[in-house]
Amino acid sequence: MRNIKLTIAYDGTNYSGWQFQKNGKSIQEIIEKRLKKITGDKARIVGSGRTDAGVHAKAQVANFKTHSKIPLKNLQMALNTALPCDIRILDIEEMDMRFNSQHNAKTKLYRYTIMNNDFVDPFIRRFAARCFYKLDINLMREASKYLLGRHDFRSFQTKDSEEHDSIRTIKYIKIEKEADLVYIYIEADGFLYNMVRNIVGTLIEIGRKKINASYIRDILAKRDRSTCGPTMPAKGLCLMKVRY
Amino acid sequence: MRNIKLTIAYDGTNYSGWQFQKNGKSIQEIIEKRLKKITGDKARIVGSGRTDAGVHAKAQVANFKTHSKIPLKNLQMALNTALPCDIRILDIEEMDMRFNSQHNAKTKLYRYTIMNNDFVDPFIRRFAARCFYKLDINLMREASKYLLGRHDFRSFQTKDSEEHDSIRTIKYIKIEKEADLVYIYIEADGFLYNMVRNIVGTLIEIGRKKINASYIRDILAKRDRSTCGPTMPAKGLCLMKVRY
Repeated sequence: MRNIKLTIAYDGTNYSGWQFQKNGKSIQEIIEKRLKKITGDKARIVGSGRTDAGVHAKAQVANFKTHSKIPLKNLQMALNTALPCDIRILDIEEMDMRFNSQHNAKTKLYRYTIMNNDFVDPFIRRFAARCFYKLDINLMREASKYLLGRHDFRSFQTKDSEEHDSIRTIKYIKIEKEADLVYIYIEADGFLYNMVRNIVGTLIEIGRKKINASYIRDILAKRDRSTCGPTMPAKGLCLMKVRY
Repeated sequence: MRNIKLTIAYDGTNYSGWQFQKNGKSIQEIIEKRLKKITGDKARIVGSGRTDAGVHAKAQVANFKTHSKIPLKNLQMALNTALPCDIRILDIEEMDMRFNSQHNAKTKLYRYTIMNNDFVDPFIRRFAARCFYKLDINLMREASKYLLGRHDFRSFQTKDSEEHDSIRTIKYIKIEKEADLVYIYIEADGFLYNMVRNIVGTLIEIGRKKINASYIRDILAKRDRSTCGPTMPAKGLCLMKVRY
């Protein structure tokens, strides 16, 4: 038996998300089906975490166990040949049998991309959400600092799927601007449902001066979803890195 | 009567090219239809040149004449609202009545993007062609210098549409490498049918050491399409700039 780790990139536009779903085409399911054809094994692949419908990944991590003896590089090539071209296996490694891509993940880094202009660039329209209000990046940066560290992020969790424990630690948050694009990077030990998209929606309200930067502290303190900004669309979100 | 110049970006993946075609969805036709709805005028828009099916543009230029008195910014906004999101009007200007985006074009700059690796990046798969042979960029650069200047480019023209005059002047050619991506920029006073895609196919044969860099002089001299490399796919090609 071998334990194999995959690093996977995908354009999530046409999928119902990472995780298997009854009605919809999930990335996990597609990879499992191709794996079964190649190895003969019916393996369950474990992802580092779910990504929602329409969310992308530059480096999702997953692992699976198999009896197959196919050399790693051949398995990677066979998978990339069999998979649709919006899902790619970037790397393949054999791990210790105890490795679990979900439980061993220490942090995840997400990036949210905003097109801050009055037209939509056709070349990145699949990977960015639009905001045509002029954004003050410095205010957004100031606000983002209040989110750093260990907090109860209940206010930034979409309500219908509350987890009991809503305490998470944001290790890193950075906002960059390149021409009309604004990138928001957030790395944390875990994320609540829609947490990044809700944080970005709130930072946008701050950037367009609808609320003050320091008000983000009050939002955190209130532990109430109704206090934070709107949930931004999935298409701007991308899983960049899983650290172990 | 006003003469209006549009600067247009498009993701050409889902179109049959710039120019109106009987069987297919052309970018020109879609813009004309939306214009007619907005202005009431049935205007013919003139593009700086055709781009083929699947070719992209970061800045195609077109012009049209209209009786409409709609302010420019409103017209741009109305067009961008009406157009599909893979076609965007980046800029709009009122020109002298004599301006013709095709006849007044002095040079056009194209970029060809090659993914030089053994997997396809799902994020740029729509905008790049793949080459998994290892390319020697310096040999490609050396060869590209022979193409600079005024030459008969008949060897780089796809045969079934020969123009009588196949003499063109390449003003600028540059090859850049960024990680696994190779960009080939070519600016000329005009291009023959498939000229960029045939030049890139030839430069790739040089980069993978199938032919010598200096052999490109012989290809030019032979004035025979069968001597040059394969035609690269449309998806890697992008019209970057039209100079007037």
